[in-house]
Amino acid sequence: MPDLFGRVAILGLGLMGGSLGLAIRDARLAGTVAGYDSMPGRTGRAHERGAIDEPATTLADAVVDADLVVLAAPVLAERVLLAALTPHLAPGAIVTDLASTKSAVCGWASALLPDPAPFVGGHPMAGREQSGIEAADGGLFRGAVWCLTPTDQTDPDTLARLQSLVTALGAQPLVLDAARHDQLVAAVSHLPLVAAAALVRTVAADPAWPDAARLAASGFRDTTRVASGDPLMARDICLTNAAGILLWMDAYIAELQSIRAVLAAGDAAIEQIFTAARDARDAWLREHEAR
Amino acid sequence: MPDLFGRVAILGLGLMGGSLGLAIRDARLAGTVAGYDSMPGRTGRAHERGAIDEPATTLADAVVDADLVVLAAPVLAERVLLAALTPHLAPGAIVTDLASTKSAVCGWASALLPDPAPFVGGHPMAGREQSGIEAADGGLFRGAVWCLTPTDQTDPDTLARLQSLVTALGAQPLVLDAARHDQLVAAVSHLPLVAAAALVRTVAADPAWPDAARLAASGFRDTTRVASGDPLMARDICLTNAAGILLWMDAYIAELQSIRAVLAAGDAAIEQIFTAARDARDAWLREHEAR
Repeated sequence: MPDLFGRVAILGLGLMGGSLGLAIRDARLAGTVAGYDSMPGRTGRAHERGAIDEPATTLADAVVDADLVVLAAPVLAERVLLAALTPHLAPGAIVTDLASTKSAVCGWASALLPDPAPFVGGHPMAGREQSGIEAADGGLFRGAVWCLTPTDQTDPDTLARLQSLVTALGAQPLVLDAARHDQLVAAVSHLPLVAAAALVRTVAADPAWPDAARLAASGFRDTTRVASGDPLMARDICLTNAAGILLWMDAYIAELQSIRAVLAAGDAAIEQIFTAARDARDAWLREHEAR
Repeated sequence: MPDLFGRVAILGLGLMGGSLGLAIRDARLAGTVAGYDSMPGRTGRAHERGAIDEPATTLADAVVDADLVVLAAPVLAERVLLAALTPHLAPGAIVTDLASTKSAVCGWASALLPDPAPFVGGHPMAGREQSGIEAADGGLFRGAVWCLTPTDQTDPDTLARLQSLVTALGAQPLVLDAARHDQLVAAVSHLPLVAAAALVRTVAADPAWPDAARLAASGFRDTTRVASGDPLMARDICLTNAAGILLWMDAYIAELQSIRAVLAAGDAAIEQIFTAARDARDAWLREHEAR
């Protein structure tokens, strides 16, 4: 396959940006992968790990001559990156990102990039609780659904080129509206994040925790796994998708209250509650694993 | 090592009973492992899988001459098993179990077994969401904490023999009071179970679920894993540990309300909420993995 892009610039070289660099280089989808991270030393470590070909010392150096620029930072930092990269963006260059919410960044791109903004929001539905370039993995995106959210300024050819990139990375492009994306991930990604953090906080705040911790095993470990993720990323998710998350939190609290009532009544019908949950999850899991 | 027991009878040959049979046979800790399950065909399948030496056609056949009887059934079924096995129990035989709550079964044992009841409650802190003899695994208990809850009738020598068995299986015996056990597992095992089931039910009940399900990935999978467990086991946990679970559900709902308020205020201090959750979980995980 000829290179899809001559020069890709990845801004932000943590778990997601580093994994993308590894994946693009593994699949030889670009002539050069340049990278930049403002955290001291991280650009060099990404280069040592083989996530980028060219460590840039400034954002401008990474972006200049790139025909694809990928923002790989927590959502709020992407606004700063968009403003900073705009003066250096080559004509015809495309910009995308990897963050967990899409409405805010699509709005910033339309406002800050040259008109019409050559931007498509991106969100690979893959991750892990570890963060940083050390956790990067070129196989992270394989088989994952990768949301692409065009704006009303997006050129169809720009979208098509990103769909080709996602497919070439072994992921499944899914084009949808940014607002719809944010509603859906509030349910299946952000609510689980808040629920897991709340679960850890509830039990760890209790005087019994030192004793209870000894009994905690794989069920506790898995139910709370996502609570070990990057708190800054979680903050930005909450600040840019608050309305969606609040709706799902209210529905979740109402469901817990409803289960509480059945439990308090000592009603053996609580079995049906667990049966329905198991059946819904198992049906999802079968489809998820078949993809 | 000489056999710790001449003849072990395992009553109930699902995930837990089958795994125990495999583990005892792998470690050659008993002369004979007899087994019985009331589900048609399961006793034979357990024999084929090598989880037992001797498939019994009745509970009495399994129990007769056993010097250790292990109840491996959902909690409420253990009451029935205790009543049924008592007439057949050999003099000097010990009885234990593997269920997730301990106060109820300790009470039933004291009431139903010959006085003083040769009983110690048991609860290996290990499991998986699959159930049935097909999911049994002789390595399931290795490294796990295994709670042992003596009653006021338990002979110290009986407890010591079970501690030896648990240690020989590669697990870590932890002796504690049944009521205290139930309080602690309500926090780290039963609350996660209810939280996971509620999470699945919340998102799967929504009209957006077919679309949201496509975006659900490893975070959703892990946060909800325990919701795929046996609903009958979950029912019995709820019916025999309702008071403890209700307290933890109330604390959990209060924590969710507290996070909701910070989120609704658009307060960037929500980062500290996630930081504290991550730090508490990571500290637990380090200790858990060091065991």
